[in-house]
Amino acid sequence: MVNRAVVLLSGGLDSATTLYIAKQKFRCLCLIFDYGQRHKKEIAAAKKIARASGSAYRIVKLDLNLASSSLTNKKISVKRSKAGIPHTYVPGRNTIFLSIALSFAEDIKAQAVFIGANAIDFSGYPDCRPAYYRAFRELARLATRTKGIKVYTPLINLTKAQIIQKGIRLGVPYGSTWSCYRGKSYPCNACDSCFYRAKGFKEAGIKDPLIK
Amino acid sequence: MVNRAVVLLSGGLDSATTLYIAKQKFRCLCLIFDYGQRHKKEIAAAKKIARASGSAYRIVKLDLNLASSSLTNKKISVKRSKAGIPHTYVPGRNTIFLSIALSFAEDIKAQAVFIGANAIDFSGYPDCRPAYYRAFRELARLATRTKGIKVYTPLINLTKAQIIQKGIRLGVPYGSTWSCYRGKSYPCNACDSCFYRAKGFKEAGIKDPLIK
Repeated sequence: MVNRAVVLLSGGLDSATTLYIAKQKFRCLCLIFDYGQRHKKEIAAAKKIARASGSAYRIVKLDLNLASSSLTNKKISVKRSKAGIPHTYVPGRNTIFLSIALSFAEDIKAQAVFIGANAIDFSGYPDCRPAYYRAFRELARLATRTKGIKVYTPLINLTKAQIIQKGIRLGVPYGSTWSCYRGKSYPCNACDSCFYRAKGFKEAGIKDPLIK
Repeated sequence: MVNRAVVLLSGGLDSATTLYIAKQKFRCLCLIFDYGQRHKKEIAAAKKIARASGSAYRIVKLDLNLASSSLTNKKISVKRSKAGIPHTYVPGRNTIFLSIALSFAEDIKAQAVFIGANAIDFSGYPDCRPAYYRAFRELARLATRTKGIKVYTPLINLTKAQIIQKGIRLGVPYGSTWSCYRGKSYPCNACDSCFYRAKGFKEAGIKDPLIK
């Protein structure tokens, strides 16, 4: 029997690394979400990465139009946030993504779901914390007919630098990933996502192939 | 401050009754899902019920195309099922619906989410059981920035007859609800959903206004 996994792929460096970790042991179906994010550019990046990894992908369109997040409401600026959970927080995002991944996993008889959540170099989103994943695993156990669909968070306790070092060893095409929340032609270097990416490459002692 | 709730409304009698329970204390936003179900007719029913109750609604389209359920794959028949979890089971459906409801609730600053799940006269779906809701409440507590969004399942321990009796007192327009999985012009009286509906009206000693 083939081991199958559903991998949440945003097009950023964490999810790309997660896909390359998953594909060592699983045949992967990547789920790419079009949820009205302002950095639509990450969708093109995700497709490119899925193809480069030799994995199948599906784009899932979610017509949410959430007003409270700067990622889905262009009236709010995405400049670097101060203390607390930032305005880039999208209510319930990972719960929605994981639920749909779980549904697909059960539908295609996959044994696992992978998500590149990280609780070290991150923006403080509640749905990136280890306690949240413990609760989701308990929910997954009760939610489905198929028992034993595993939910993996292989990056949860790694620093951004460690993620990049691992990804380099696995051949992740970081030049094809996209992190910047602004989604213009070049990374803005001012949003939280650019900040953590630059910090990671710097600490890893590796040049970001995206920065010319 | 206005108390707001997000109510999952399928158009069936359980969710309609739940809406009328919720609207006693909350201003409700009904979420109606178009997830490729064969009984699309329930969507029209849901809109009608939302309007009758004086509540706002949003239709959320989910392009899932799940192959393993008879509700989303027309190649599988929906005739009355035998033992076990039936073929009408849609993998992860309530988890997806609740996640999106939670996201909207946080986005519009609602205090509550309502779902008409029932674990008495039901088809044995895993995501209708009380243990599943306990796990979802724990997840909701950890998933969001807003603490204290409550997840209510007011019908969970009622029989179908008790649900109908309660709904009649609240003025639920049962003639506008739709339960049949086949979604033709008249209830098929052969699927699980028709079975539980007929049983409920019979036990409540009330004539189903949908049956001419």
